[in-house]
Amino acid sequence: MIKTMEFKLDTRLWSTKARNLNPYVPGEQPKHDNLCKLNTNENPFPPSPKVVEAITAALSHGGDQLRLYPAPESDALRQALADAYDLQLNQVFVGNGSDEVLALVFASFFMKERPLLAPDISYSFYPVYADTFGIDLVKIPLRDDFSIETDDYRQPCSGIIIANPNAPTGILMSLEAIDKLATEHPNAVIVIDEAYIDFASTEQASAIRLIETHDNLLVTQTFSKSRSLAGLRVGMAFGNPSLIEALTRMKNSFNSYPLDRLAQAGALASVEDKLYFKSTCEQVIALREQLIEQLNLLNFTVLPSQANFVFARPQQGNASEVAQQLREQGIIVRYFNQPRINEYLRITVGTAEQNRRLIGALQQMAG
Amino acid sequence: MIKTMEFKLDTRLWSTKARNLNPYVPGEQPKHDNLCKLNTNENPFPPSPKVVEAITAALSHGGDQLRLYPAPESDALRQALADAYDLQLNQVFVGNGSDEVLALVFASFFMKERPLLAPDISYSFYPVYADTFGIDLVKIPLRDDFSIETDDYRQPCSGIIIANPNAPTGILMSLEAIDKLATEHPNAVIVIDEAYIDFASTEQASAIRLIETHDNLLVTQTFSKSRSLAGLRVGMAFGNPSLIEALTRMKNSFNSYPLDRLAQAGALASVEDKLYFKSTCEQVIALREQLIEQLNLLNFTVLPSQANFVFARPQQGNASEVAQQLREQGIIVRYFNQPRINEYLRITVGTAEQNRRLIGALQQMAG
Repeated sequence: MIKTMEFKLDTRLWSTKARNLNPYVPGEQPKHDNLCKLNTNENPFPPSPKVVEAITAALSHGGDQLRLYPAPESDALRQALADAYDLQLNQVFVGNGSDEVLALVFASFFMKERPLLAPDISYSFYPVYADTFGIDLVKIPLRDDFSIETDDYRQPCSGIIIANPNAPTGILMSLEAIDKLATEHPNAVIVIDEAYIDFASTEQASAIRLIETHDNLLVTQTFSKSRSLAGLRVGMAFGNPSLIEALTRMKNSFNSYPLDRLAQAGALASVEDKLYFKSTCEQVIALREQLIEQLNLLNFTVLPSQANFVFARPQQGNASEVAQQLREQGIIVRYFNQPRINEYLRITVGTAEQNRRLIGALQQMAG
Repeated sequence: MIKTMEFKLDTRLWSTKARNLNPYVPGEQPKHDNLCKLNTNENPFPPSPKVVEAITAALSHGGDQLRLYPAPESDALRQALADAYDLQLNQVFVGNGSDEVLALVFASFFMKERPLLAPDISYSFYPVYADTFGIDLVKIPLRDDFSIETDDYRQPCSGIIIANPNAPTGILMSLEAIDKLATEHPNAVIVIDEAYIDFASTEQASAIRLIETHDNLLVTQTFSKSRSLAGLRVGMAFGNPSLIEALTRMKNSFNSYPLDRLAQAGALASVEDKLYFKSTCEQVIALREQLIEQLNLLNFTVLPSQANFVFARPQQGNASEVAQQLREQGIIVRYFNQPRINEYLRITVGTAEQNRRLIGALQQMAG
């Protein structure tokens, strides 16, 4: 039973930094059964069976390995990632979810005089990090169609961070545009946050292969989406060894061992099971295309998503009301009460069954 | 196979903060078999069997739960800790190892004009955090016998941090002394880092029961030592709800989900298995007392340890040489090349067998 002490908040002993924080608010994680949870972009498929096998193996001999500290730099996992992406060990960094990786990125590369640039509509943790580390974040408006105009980024800056595909729009930016940004800003760190990249329909959408030619390009990814491991907290960054070294030093100035033994073992097994990964990504992409088609039939305007979610505007009524009505039927989607996007809903691509339930509910509401 | 890219370190794109870091260097984690690893104070016993059961249960249905984000505030684990220590939910904070908890503590309470005070000989991560967050750390010398003189802390400060039992000395400070510090510094946060407290021979050595009477007292602990879960990365803090709220906001400004599902499940099971916990702590204490006795017979000077390690000075030869000779026989202990303690070795209390091997090697060296 939850017992909470009544108290009056007293910030007398807090640092000024603590008083001025604007913490991130994650999408809710409701605990009820039979919910159709389409609000935090989790994968509808379980992780590779090899993940469970590897974690189970790490628990052998009565869990005796858990006595011992994990490998501080997660060498085996990083080498597996290096092998998978045709890189070398010191071009790979891993952390406790890509959220932790991004926090270290902000501290390592953006705490400078010049501002950081990011799209006005993007991952809502970026302004939180900027606040946390005292970074001036300048928001560059997306075009009216929510795509990115690279020319708008031609201004002095410490760095540029872009989610690609962007969240919550799902729109993919081309490698040519990323190449152009990195070329035009040789003294700024360009971070491409590829949380959703594995759901792109086009082959080789990732900017990883550009890191060899751009020493100022850093690519972040996560195990939470395409690898069905949001519950395991593993994220990574790819870049030239000098960028990776900065992240490593920053990590070891905060917390030396952020990845526990089970997370390292599970993530490694996931990387090695390439077939399962490819197959589940393809299935999510197919389910997304079906979902978009069905939403179009219901007269939703759906942005061209290359992620495992769609950003969709209902024709009638406002998005907030639709979200509320869906919630009453146990279907949770994400609504952002923000300028420019407050007529849209972000809907995670679920299982075929979940998508049917969503579409059924929307059909009923339409009429 | 490890493939590392050759590179020349280029810090051009780093923030000033990244350039000036002095990262923590953890005790080594050698990977050879048959090593007698007595260098990082891990527990010689495996974790409770309930831990393995709980993690295995969290892997059920093909690991399907791993798809989903974990509980961001680890409510169930925090409630179990609250119940175990007779507290309420909002007096408990958990993080990715006590190292992460301590990083958040430094950012939340010590980033102030006035300096932070800590003993000159203590956990070597404290000066690293101070550097990371731009905190002025003033080191207060321990007495000649390595005990703490609370009167030496009577100076303006933002806070005081003391490891209790202290590391690497193993010496325990009394609750009366902690009560005095908290009373004398009502506007400073007093942090008692109890990583090793469960190995104290005296009952009720923990300062947790003082948090009700001191709103400026924060107690940190870890699952890495007494709970045999260094590999799982879980640490906690206990304090009044306003202090806990600051830590929660700071966490949510860095990384919302630092504890993965398996760590939450395993740690919770560990807290609930009180009998196993008590039994293994008692066994470690008994092994420590035997080890001290045997080291005394070999003419080592051993400080009065209340931890799962001993801090011991060999009578002849210097500690560095002894450490090297032990290493040649596959026995790893920790040596700190620092003023005041460079004649000592920090030796983890191992299994009965490991301790025999250590003592055997030392007897042989004594001739």
